[in-house]
Amino acid sequence: MKKGDQVVGTGSSRSDRKRAAIVAAAREVFLRHGYAGATMDDVAELAGASKVTVYKHFSDKPSLFTAVFTTAIDDVAAASRPLVDSLGDSTDIEGDLRRFARDHVVSVTAPDLVRMRRMIIAEAERFPDVAAAWHRAGPERGHRSLAEQIRKLTARGLLRATDPMLAAQNLNYLILSVPLNEAMFVVGVDPPSIRRLHRYADEAVRLFIAAYGVAACGVPDADPA
Amino acid sequence: MKKGDQVVGTGSSRSDRKRAAIVAAAREVFLRHGYAGATMDDVAELAGASKVTVYKHFSDKPSLFTAVFTTAIDDVAAASRPLVDSLGDSTDIEGDLRRFARDHVVSVTAPDLVRMRRMIIAEAERFPDVAAAWHRAGPERGHRSLAEQIRKLTARGLLRATDPMLAAQNLNYLILSVPLNEAMFVVGVDPPSIRRLHRYADEAVRLFIAAYGVAACGVPDADPA
Repeated sequence: MKKGDQVVGTGSSRSDRKRAAIVAAAREVFLRHGYAGATMDDVAELAGASKVTVYKHFSDKPSLFTAVFTTAIDDVAAASRPLVDSLGDSTDIEGDLRRFARDHVVSVTAPDLVRMRRMIIAEAERFPDVAAAWHRAGPERGHRSLAEQIRKLTARGLLRATDPMLAAQNLNYLILSVPLNEAMFVVGVDPPSIRRLHRYADEAVRLFIAAYGVAACGVPDADPA
Repeated sequence: MKKGDQVVGTGSSRSDRKRAAIVAAAREVFLRHGYAGATMDDVAELAGASKVTVYKHFSDKPSLFTAVFTTAIDDVAAASRPLVDSLGDSTDIEGDLRRFARDHVVSVTAPDLVRMRRMIIAEAERFPDVAAAWHRAGPERGHRSLAEQIRKLTARGLLRATDPMLAAQNLNYLILSVPLNEAMFVVGVDPPSIRRLHRYADEAVRLFIAAYGVAACGVPDADPA
């Protein structure tokens, strides 16, 4: 329940605090019992709230689950925001991209997020809105933020990305794909070491710079947009 | 049940044909009812086999499901093998990689495979062996095949990949990641057009050549291994 402290905003009302406590309790219940096994009763009990109160905040299990993972994603996004938002003004693109990439791969492959991702994929056909909410809060928002910085760097003549959104998507998945796919399918073994995660991150940045850097070869259009 | 024809090998015995018919029926049942909803009874009925016969071939639902998706993956791998195996001898790397990449993204994002992938991720915690079998039959085998060709091209001085396995993993996920992640989380909308899939494939190849091609800039070691 230590997450409870994080999700309580400053100056929050009593109702906000109760909502945050319910979300924190729900996170524990979903991670412990899986989506199908989790019940609103378990959540109410762990949150020290009545079932009526839980339902006052969340009309059903999908919307409670959505609150759980958007909170988790928001926490990750907030932690990495300074790294991401400063990329566009960077004077050391490779170093700053590497710092972002290393941070990104470690946060997104954290065991709790991997389990939530698996639950969402599992329920995607029954609850397409839940899966779409994850995609919007996670990859889509992340790609937009990165694309904005890539656009700035291209305008400054430091990158050459004619399609900043596609460049952002490729950067994100270059960083994440190998460890994230292994995390999805290889269960019950030790998670990869930080060192191994950083190796993927560094190679992703090398590829990105090779393809989108101004020194890249084989790119016909030498003019930044 | 038209898949039945494909999975029956040439010169197969009566028992092989029965096994193939059971796997083909199971494929339909799993895709129709999902993993949890599928029963051995449904499979036996659709295959026109007794339940005893089904259990003679497959001791339980996980092993029957494993046979279904390894057959599906084997079909995809067999179809793309000529494209992959000729890469090492290519005299037009960019063109041949693009042909492979376009074929690869279209096969792997086929709706039936996407649904199987979702089911496997859903059951990965309860059946880690099933998920590991998918990972071995799919990505791991694919990466090994690609790495072998990348090694050949590096030895011929046409690519510069000091770690062919990592280069293979990056190529694979550059080709697949955007459409595959959208397919996992964005359910019930039209699948992406072939044209859009090809665009991701082409950009993946451009990045790969920029980073691992011999004309790549910013790579300190100019000697092919």
